[in-house]
Amino acid sequence: MLEKRKIEEVLTYIEPGPVTLVSTSDGKRNNLMTVTWTMASSFSQDLVITSGPWNLSFETILETRECVVAIPPASLLETAVGIGMVSGADVDKFERFSLTPVKGEVVSAPLVGECLASIECTLTEHIARYGFLVLKARRLWVNPDLEDRRICHAVSDGTFFADGERFDYRRLMEAKLPPGL
Amino acid sequence: MLEKRKIEEVLTYIEPGPVTLVSTSDGKRNNLMTVTWTMASSFSQDLVITSGPWNLSFETILETRECVVAIPPASLLETAVGIGMVSGADVDKFERFSLTPVKGEVVSAPLVGECLASIECTLTEHIARYGFLVLKARRLWVNPDLEDRRICHAVSDGTFFADGERFDYRRLMEAKLPPGL
Repeated sequence: MLEKRKIEEVLTYIEPGPVTLVSTSDGKRNNLMTVTWTMASSFSQDLVITSGPWNLSFETILETRECVVAIPPASLLETAVGIGMVSGADVDKFERFSLTPVKGEVVSAPLVGECLASIECTLTEHIARYGFLVLKARRLWVNPDLEDRRICHAVSDGTFFADGERFDYRRLMEAKLPPGL
Repeated sequence: MLEKRKIEEVLTYIEPGPVTLVSTSDGKRNNLMTVTWTMASSFSQDLVITSGPWNLSFETILETRECVVAIPPASLLETAVGIGMVSGADVDKFERFSLTPVKGEVVSAPLVGECLASIECTLTEHIARYGFLVLKARRLWVNPDLEDRRICHAVSDGTFFADGERFDYRRLMEAKLPPGL
């Protein structure tokens, strides 16, 4: 169901600024949180998310030093919003939202079967004064079977945009395209 | 032409993960760079961009401790790509790309008349080991006259998506909407 892809492609999922689902496992239970404060930060698969003690998963990431950053398609947007509105203290979110936890290769946190991409990440550093979790992407898994391949973007006011018209400037940017893309 | 808006709305321009133009002034000359590694990081108008010595504007931001983060509409995307492909050492990018520098209220770096939004920012901290420039948004200016109001998102491979279908989950998210939005 999920296919492993070359790690350089992580950038193509993070740089556009997607709504993400971050999955964790504390050894006993899986959990999910919705994170829209994300940033690509290098051509070597570094990325950052902002989180804090208000997220139950945050403590788990600090303790386990790992997580999976997954990218839901637009068809899963209402689910992603719902995941952000309930606490994993009360429910198993994979079960509640009918998502499939899939075993990865590097981390214990589960991949998300229904997402466009699931990125296995390890924690490089927690910069506490800003809530930055600096992550290194280790493996990239994609679900090639999903029909809706639109990434979503949070507008912060309760509305979201899915990707629309595509523009191709590969020729114009040729001299500056990242290696491997 | 540009209207000042309440500062809380900054989040609605940064959280979606837009292609941005970052403008600077070193006291003698204005400059522009295209930045797509951006992140919202608080409900108090903190944001972060990743940059480094490879950008001429980067040194100016460190020296002046300020910049303007502007959000171009899809109709300006080819211009934004072009801005990323030339160095401000050689050309005045405002002139070359027919953009209008507009005086702001707080910083010397110019607002960009043709952008959807121009955010006056001061530098809070440079986290050198990751290239993070942590910024505080001070003023938000928008151009209400632009017809194309689609924000753009970089896919990293030379292609870009403009915002497409909009989804409204304000009711579902009511309990968690940021103050002022």
